[in-house]
Amino acid sequence: MFHKILIANRGEIAVRIIRACKEMGIETVAVYSEADREALHVLMADEAVCIGPDRSKDSYLNMQNIISATVLTGATAIHPGFGFLAENSAFARMCEDCNITFIGPNADTIELMGNKSKARETMQKAGVPVIPGSDGEIESIKEAKKLAEHIGYPVMIKASAGGGGKGMRAVYSADELEKAIMSARSEAKAAFGDDKVYMEKLIINPKHVEFQILADKYGNVVHLGERDCSVQRRNQKLMEESPCPVMSKDLRAKMGNAAVKAAKATGYVNAGTIEFLLDNQNNFYFMEMNTRIQVEHPVTEMVTGIDLIKEQIKIAAGEKLSFRQKDIEFRGHAIECRINAEDPKRGFMPCPGLVKNVLFPGGPGIRVDSALYPGYMVPPCYDSMLAKIIAHGKNREEAIDRMKRALSELIIDGIETNVDFQFELFEREEIISGHYNTGLIEGKK
Amino acid sequence: MFHKILIANRGEIAVRIIRACKEMGIETVAVYSEADREALHVLMADEAVCIGPDRSKDSYLNMQNIISATVLTGATAIHPGFGFLAENSAFARMCEDCNITFIGPNADTIELMGNKSKARETMQKAGVPVIPGSDGEIESIKEAKKLAEHIGYPVMIKASAGGGGKGMRAVYSADELEKAIMSARSEAKAAFGDDKVYMEKLIINPKHVEFQILADKYGNVVHLGERDCSVQRRNQKLMEESPCPVMSKDLRAKMGNAAVKAAKATGYVNAGTIEFLLDNQNNFYFMEMNTRIQVEHPVTEMVTGIDLIKEQIKIAAGEKLSFRQKDIEFRGHAIECRINAEDPKRGFMPCPGLVKNVLFPGGPGIRVDSALYPGYMVPPCYDSMLAKIIAHGKNREEAIDRMKRALSELIIDGIETNVDFQFELFEREEIISGHYNTGLIEGKK
Repeated sequence: MFHKILIANRGEIAVRIIRACKEMGIETVAVYSEADREALHVLMADEAVCIGPDRSKDSYLNMQNIISATVLTGATAIHPGFGFLAENSAFARMCEDCNITFIGPNADTIELMGNKSKARETMQKAGVPVIPGSDGEIESIKEAKKLAEHIGYPVMIKASAGGGGKGMRAVYSADELEKAIMSARSEAKAAFGDDKVYMEKLIINPKHVEFQILADKYGNVVHLGERDCSVQRRNQKLMEESPCPVMSKDLRAKMGNAAVKAAKATGYVNAGTIEFLLDNQNNFYFMEMNTRIQVEHPVTEMVTGIDLIKEQIKIAAGEKLSFRQKDIEFRGHAIECRINAEDPKRGFMPCPGLVKNVLFPGGPGIRVDSALYPGYMVPPCYDSMLAKIIAHGKNREEAIDRMKRALSELIIDGIETNVDFQFELFEREEIISGHYNTGLIEGKK
Repeated sequence: MFHKILIANRGEIAVRIIRACKEMGIETVAVYSEADREALHVLMADEAVCIGPDRSKDSYLNMQNIISATVLTGATAIHPGFGFLAENSAFARMCEDCNITFIGPNADTIELMGNKSKARETMQKAGVPVIPGSDGEIESIKEAKKLAEHIGYPVMIKASAGGGGKGMRAVYSADELEKAIMSARSEAKAAFGDDKVYMEKLIINPKHVEFQILADKYGNVVHLGERDCSVQRRNQKLMEESPCPVMSKDLRAKMGNAAVKAAKATGYVNAGTIEFLLDNQNNFYFMEMNTRIQVEHPVTEMVTGIDLIKEQIKIAAGEKLSFRQKDIEFRGHAIECRINAEDPKRGFMPCPGLVKNVLFPGGPGIRVDSALYPGYMVPPCYDSMLAKIIAHGKNREEAIDRMKRALSELIIDGIETNVDFQFELFEREEIISGHYNTGLIEGKK
C-alpha cells in the first residue's frame, strides 16, 4: 500500500480523499494555488505545497509543478479527484513516465474514452447500445433520408467538428430534413470552417442514468448500481439519486451488464462511470464514460456501504476487489444536493465571498461533504460548489423528507447560495413522482 | 398521526426529536428554562415555551408547567426524550389523565420496571435469566453460606435499602463471608438505619450489553440487536457500539429472545432497552429495563436503517410495526462517542462556557447529533454532554478508522472537552480487540 499520496485537487473532493487516506493510515500531501492558502484541504493534509498562482492553468492544471511536488515530498501516487487533470491522458502518461501511480485508469483508456467517436465505435463493437445514427458523416441528402427513415424521426443533425450547440438541428419529419442539413452545414462551415455533419436519433427529454463500475487489475469488474442525474441546468447536475426512481430490477440487470461489458471492452481499471440516456420506453444508449470518480459518488456509497475512494486507492495499489457482483447489496435510497455559491434569482450568477458562519445539518441519514468553515473566503477563481448534502433513508420518501429537513437546517451566512432553489425542487410534482428528465429545469420539450 | 408534539427535554435529544417530527410533517413545541433561551432546540422548533428558571427542578422537571405548555399550544403528545421526566411514572400518569399521549410505555410499566426487586421478580417468572442471589433478605449466616455455595463464589452482599456503594461487600470465599455480612450490616445500619442485606452473584468485570426492542400496541415485539456499552466511567457510558464485538449469532438469538420475552412479560409498548450483564463465559443476566429512548440509540439506527424516534411516535399514535423480526437486517458496524464539556485531566470536571467555534466532522459514515453552534454558551446547570459522534463502517475496523478520523477533525473552541480522551481510547489494546469490559476505565479487577 502507498505510504504517501498527493492529492492534485482542491475543495470538498480533496477533503474527501484526505479523509479516505487518514482512515487507511496513508499520509497526504495537499497542493494549492495562492488563492487557496487558507483552504480546508491545505489545513487537513499532513503536508501542503503551493503549486502556483490563482489561475487553474498556472496551478491545478500545472502538470510540471504537481509532478515536482510529488517527487519532492516523496509521495508515490497521485489522486486527481474530478475536473482539473482527472481525465487528462497526458498527465496520466507523465505520471507513468515518472514512476508515480496515477490513481485512475491508464493513459490509453482515458484517451480512448475522451474521443467521442472512438468511444462510440468501441461500445458498438462490444455490443453496448449506442444512439442510432450515421457511421461518420452524411454524404448525401438521399442517404440521409434513408437513414432517418431507418432510425426513425426525430433525428438530430450535428456538426462533426461541432460543439457549443453550433451546427445542430433537430428534425421532426422527412420534409424538414433537406433544409435542416443545408443550414446545419452552412452554420458549421461558418463556425468551424468544416461543413461535415452527421446524424443521430434525437432522444427527447431522456433520463440521464449512469452506472458506477469498479474494475481491478485482474479483470474483475462489478457495477454498483445506478444514479439518476437528470436534474441538470446547462449540463451541470444539481441533484442526483440512487437508485433511479423509475428503475426496475430487470432493467438494472440489463443496463448493469452493459456497463460491465463497456468497462471490459476497454480493459478498464479503477472506478469509472458509464453514462446512458434512458428514454421513456426503457431504451438506453451509451452516452460517454467518465474515467474518474464523480461528484455524485456519495449516493452510491450510501446505498452500497462501499467506500469508492478507498476502492480506487486499493485498486491502484494492485489489490484485488474484495467482493463480487452478487455480494453487492443496495439498502434504501440516497439523494445528493449540490450547494453552490450562486444566485438563482440572478441567473445563477456565481457569488464568491466571505462565509461568516456555517451550520451544517446533522442527525440520522445525513452526510455532509464540504470544504467550508466559518471565516472561509470562497475564491472567485474556481467552481462554485461549496458543499454536498447527502440524505439517506429506508426508502425514497424518507430520503426526500430527510433532504428537505437537512436543507432547512443548513446555514451559510455571508454569501448567496442555491439552498432555497434546491429545497423547492422537492416540492415539484416531477421530483416527487420520480418521473423527471433532463428537460426539468430548463423546460425543454 | 399527531398534528403537534411537545418535546419535554433539551440539548441534542430535543434536536433529534425535532428532526424526526420535521421529517414526518409534525409541528413541534420546544420547552426551555431561562438558561436555555438561546438553545438550538428552541431555535429549531416551530414554537417554544419558557417553563421556568434554570434549575431542572423548576423547569424540565416541572410537570405542571410542561402540561400547561402542552395544553396552551394545542399539542396532543409529549416526547420526554431521556433523563428528566422520561421514566417518571407520575408524569406519564398525569399525561394520561390530561388526555395527552405520552410517547413511551404506560405509567404502570414505567413504575414496575423502576422497582428493581419487582422487575427482577417479573423477569424471573418470565424465564429471563437474572443474577443468581437471595430472594429477598438474608436471614442467617448459615442460610447465606448455603446460598453462596449454591450460586458459587464470588458473591456480593448488598444493603436492601442501599445505594451509592454503601453496605456493599464483595466476598471471594466461604471464610470471608460471615465477617463481610456483619460489616455490611453495620455499615447499612449506619447509613440507612436498616441493616437488611441480600446476596447476589458477583459478576466480575462483565460486559454491559443491551438489546433494543420495539413493541406496538398489538402485541408485536421485535429486537433490533444489541449495543455494547461496557466503556463506562462511574456508571456513565462513554462509548457504545453495535454489534457487540464478541457477540455470536447464536448468543444474539438467545439474548434477543430473552429481551423480547422480557418486553412481552410486562406488556411493554414503545421503544425500550433490556440491559444485560454478560460474563466471559457467555452467561447473561437481566440487569434492568430502560423504558425510554437511550442516548446511544443512533448506533442501532445506523446498523438497522430504522429511525427509532419515528417508530416511537408511530407506535404512540397507534400504528402497527411495519416489519417483523425476520425483516430486520444488520449492516456493518457503528460506534458512538459522547463528547462532553469536561476535563479528563482534572478528574472529568465539567467545563461549561462559551463555545467560540465549532467544526464538526463530515464525509462518509459520519453522523453528528448535537445542539452546539458557534457562539453557544454551554450552561453549567445541566448534563455536560455536547455532542455525539457516530461512525459507521462496513466492519468494526472501518468504523474505528472513521471514528478516529472524525475525532481528529472535530473542533470545539473555547471550552475543555473529552475529545482527546475518546481518541486515545481507540489506541487501547482492549478496545482494538473488542475484549473490554466495564472495568476498562476505572481499572476494576
